[in-house]
Amino acid sequence: MSDYKHPYRDAEFILNELVGFDQLCADAGLEDINSELADVILTEAGKLGADVLAPLNYIGDTQGATLSPQGVVETPGFSAAYAQYVENGWPSLTAKEEFGGQNLPNVLGTAVNEIWHTANMSFALCPMLTQGAIESLVHHGSDALKQNYLPKLVSGEWTGTMNLTEPDAGSDLAAIKARATPEGDHYRITGQKIFITWGDHQMTENIVHLVLARLPDAPAGVKGISLFIVPKFLLDEQGNPAQLNDVSCVSLEHKLGIHGSPTCVMSFGDNGGAVGYIVGEPHQGLSYMFTMMNHARQSVGLQGVAISERSYQLAVQYAKDRLQGTRKDGSRFPIIDFPDVRRMLMQMKASIEAMRGLAYIAAAETDRVHSTTDTSQAKHHQDRVDLLTPIVKGWITEVAQELTYLGVQVHGGMGFIEETGAAQHYRDARILTIYEGTTGIQALDLVGRKTLMNKGTVLSALLDEIAQVQQELAASSALQNEARALDTALIAAHEALQWLLDNAEKDASVAGSISVNFMMMMGYVCGGWVMGQSALKAQALLNAGQGDSAFLHSKLITSAFYCDHLLPRATGLLAVIKAGSQSVMSLPNDQF
Amino acid sequence: MSDYKHPYRDAEFILNELVGFDQLCADAGLEDINSELADVILTEAGKLGADVLAPLNYIGDTQGATLSPQGVVETPGFSAAYAQYVENGWPSLTAKEEFGGQNLPNVLGTAVNEIWHTANMSFALCPMLTQGAIESLVHHGSDALKQNYLPKLVSGEWTGTMNLTEPDAGSDLAAIKARATPEGDHYRITGQKIFITWGDHQMTENIVHLVLARLPDAPAGVKGISLFIVPKFLLDEQGNPAQLNDVSCVSLEHKLGIHGSPTCVMSFGDNGGAVGYIVGEPHQGLSYMFTMMNHARQSVGLQGVAISERSYQLAVQYAKDRLQGTRKDGSRFPIIDFPDVRRMLMQMKASIEAMRGLAYIAAAETDRVHSTTDTSQAKHHQDRVDLLTPIVKGWITEVAQELTYLGVQVHGGMGFIEETGAAQHYRDARILTIYEGTTGIQALDLVGRKTLMNKGTVLSALLDEIAQVQQELAASSALQNEARALDTALIAAHEALQWLLDNAEKDASVAGSISVNFMMMMGYVCGGWVMGQSALKAQALLNAGQGDSAFLHSKLITSAFYCDHLLPRATGLLAVIKAGSQSVMSLPNDQF
Repeated sequence: MSDYKHPYRDAEFILNELVGFDQLCADAGLEDINSELADVILTEAGKLGADVLAPLNYIGDTQGATLSPQGVVETPGFSAAYAQYVENGWPSLTAKEEFGGQNLPNVLGTAVNEIWHTANMSFALCPMLTQGAIESLVHHGSDALKQNYLPKLVSGEWTGTMNLTEPDAGSDLAAIKARATPEGDHYRITGQKIFITWGDHQMTENIVHLVLARLPDAPAGVKGISLFIVPKFLLDEQGNPAQLNDVSCVSLEHKLGIHGSPTCVMSFGDNGGAVGYIVGEPHQGLSYMFTMMNHARQSVGLQGVAISERSYQLAVQYAKDRLQGTRKDGSRFPIIDFPDVRRMLMQMKASIEAMRGLAYIAAAETDRVHSTTDTSQAKHHQDRVDLLTPIVKGWITEVAQELTYLGVQVHGGMGFIEETGAAQHYRDARILTIYEGTTGIQALDLVGRKTLMNKGTVLSALLDEIAQVQQELAASSALQNEARALDTALIAAHEALQWLLDNAEKDASVAGSISVNFMMMMGYVCGGWVMGQSALKAQALLNAGQGDSAFLHSKLITSAFYCDHLLPRATGLLAVIKAGSQSVMSLPNDQF
Repeated sequence: MSDYKHPYRDAEFILNELVGFDQLCADAGLEDINSELADVILTEAGKLGADVLAPLNYIGDTQGATLSPQGVVETPGFSAAYAQYVENGWPSLTAKEEFGGQNLPNVLGTAVNEIWHTANMSFALCPMLTQGAIESLVHHGSDALKQNYLPKLVSGEWTGTMNLTEPDAGSDLAAIKARATPEGDHYRITGQKIFITWGDHQMTENIVHLVLARLPDAPAGVKGISLFIVPKFLLDEQGNPAQLNDVSCVSLEHKLGIHGSPTCVMSFGDNGGAVGYIVGEPHQGLSYMFTMMNHARQSVGLQGVAISERSYQLAVQYAKDRLQGTRKDGSRFPIIDFPDVRRMLMQMKASIEAMRGLAYIAAAETDRVHSTTDTSQAKHHQDRVDLLTPIVKGWITEVAQELTYLGVQVHGGMGFIEETGAAQHYRDARILTIYEGTTGIQALDLVGRKTLMNKGTVLSALLDEIAQVQQELAASSALQNEARALDTALIAAHEALQWLLDNAEKDASVAGSISVNFMMMMGYVCGGWVMGQSALKAQALLNAGQGDSAFLHSKLITSAFYCDHLLPRATGLLAVIKAGSQSVMSLPNDQF
């Protein structure tokens, strides 16, 4: 298996040059936190990722979790690795100090989380889901619930899960049937939940399930869903796990990928009802889900960066090692010297840099929402978060499919052999456009709630900001190609936005017919924004004689490649978008 | 598992309306063969495919071939199915009558083979490889070899394999090390071959290996490779399999997909050397491989059509069955009514129709090479075959990746669960852009041997023929959108071709840097050619009040969708192609 190495240089370039990490910390009043500390943290995380988590990634694939009479048994080695992860304090990085957290900015947490996902995505899903449980409790839990559960979740001593989906309620949460019956200070929860990531395991003393269910008097549809906390073990008076609750994993899914992450069918209340405690107010479950959604969706986008990076590193190593083809002097050369192999590797590298930049920039916006007292500024940042989130989730995870595909392709025949490892990344990546809302859901969110509902003003503001970068590029004699490419893409983006605004109301199916192509177009434009800024910063540093010259030159080349190869896709999508809904919708169902 | 149904209507539409099957048969002097007979054959093949082969597809995935001390044991059920396939006479469909064949045109064999690959691609690989062995012998074998081996291969009583690849010789056959030492009337073969499809099994009494190896006096490189026939069992004087030869499968690969197809590491000569017989002249092995290459590569392209069709049928069934979302009156509706789901299904359907059309058209050209005595006509058809083959193989198999991806995506979370079956098609499809020459190899072939070597004249002639279709579209008031879309794509294609001709010699890496994008562009243009013709024929039949009106209307819609959604990709690739090689090639190796 390949040794995974964290791409520090790129992460640090993005944090320092694109995000402005030191300024962000200063604005947030985090005086002790700066880029030097970030370097130390990333270096330490990189060690744990490379030395402990990465070697378990292939083991997780080949020796996935199993279901025993005592519950789910995770992949051998995961438990010890998790213990080390907790012992080193990683779970609490971005949590609030009052619950035992270290109060670091989310953007730094994002850069660290990228390391876990790159090293071992199946493993890293467990803390990722715990994060969702923490957020639910922080924002909506009573003081008692916070006191009882948050410190242990923040420290990682316990893990959390999110129980939304049911067999008849996937993306359509209105169809949820799980029930919650009041009983004294708690509720009895009954029902079955599916696709529950890390729903059971033996790594921690307790597991805290967040569960959507209906109260007896609940209205139909999404307005009748409440959120409950259901611990695997009920707590005794000292707050320690004691009696086993009426909840269990009844089966594990046999999946295409992420075998190291147990995907559970969870049964609540087979023996009279699981004891649960309501989080917040009745019937507010769906809105509470939205609280967590931006973070969860950005996290999945980040997984897209991570799995692509892992796939890229493996492909580069193979392309450098594999001799194929003979020079005229009889010596053999590695396949990285073939232009088409290099094209594939460049596509991976340039796309990953654009994706990483966008993921960090979106994460930094979530920090900025909280670091200003100016409500209009806060709204500006929140709008930006809301706009970028479906792009980060939707676009990055779609591109990750293509990149992990190329990661296999670079290997030729060896890529199809499981022991090579490239196929695992390809299989693991496949979940990313599905969970936490499919690509179609992200795209509808972008087109509907995030664009049509505000008449396009939030997207327009972003395009204006990108146009400023374009103007800076146009003013730089070395970056004329990039300036032209971004200009062409921006013109297409404006035209697509205007077409959407003009046509969405004429026909109810327009938004859904064009949504994914619209989202992909905006994703490529955002990637152009990232790489345009990157080229400007790299050029400025080179002009000033600062920084790592080899790295900065390589950034100029990946930016140029992005503008040559990826950015034209934005323009190419314009014709498809303007074709609208007619040929999408007109085939009768019986002709499919 | 989904019931597979052969899409007769589309296959027949393409054979009759695009290929002109009756005329093709008449031109070839095949007076007994016509479209009525073709219907009967396709219907019967469809039954065997649906009733016998398709149900074994999932079993092949979950119970792949295993290696026992007695050799490879194939998936349970495959042997009986193979016996039925042989008994019904399917293997000999297109073979020459003198060897027991039925002398049907290749295009009809292609339509039939599509059925086997759609029903069970792993199974169908066995006869597909046998076909390669047959062709080698027909074209290059001595009379004795033909007499001893061809009738049994043609009847399917024995199967054949192709042994090219070695651990250090993948796409680069120059590095082949296997040796052949003369000994009386035969040779002793020693060496190891990898990635040997159906290299061993128990379904037939004998297996005929075609093996590339070097004679002792062979020149280095590709000019020193000879072709040998090495039977698993040597024949006795009656021509029956007798003594076991010195060849065996020493291990099976653990693959991402096509688990039902054993991929063998074959060892020749562990006990003194396997007895082999030379095919044709010494040192001509590579050129003999080229004889088979067009057919083998077109067959893999056809597999791309087939696996996409299977994935599409499963997705359609799920999209019609799965209720999600609620109407205002409280009733629930299937996900096929969501525009984005419909967009995905339309993309699958329209692409498959274009791909199927192109695959059949290319196959028909191979028939036309032999049905004319006019050498310039024959050359025209052979040039067309040579040109279309890398597009059929390269473009179709790349599109098949996207389509089987969508086949998973339509299923949402269920797509990631292996029991659903969508993931199997996605995994199985992954081999198609790798074996029989990767996409990069196809693209280089198109750009180099098939275009630059003739200064673009062959491709120009094709583009001119497509332009005639465009003019017919422009003359049809109902097909103006299609006319415009094809016109735009053709302008881009001409510009790309001219750019290639102008720039390829300036820089040795230009061809390789742009090749895949160039091939994909030409693929989408060819798809536009197919769908443009389809729309014209459908419109003409509708105007004349002939044919199945519902089907013909649906063909107009898939043509419109293709022009709206797929054809613009050709135009989008122009900017990427014209970016050339600079940003592809300029990153130093140590910066990857």
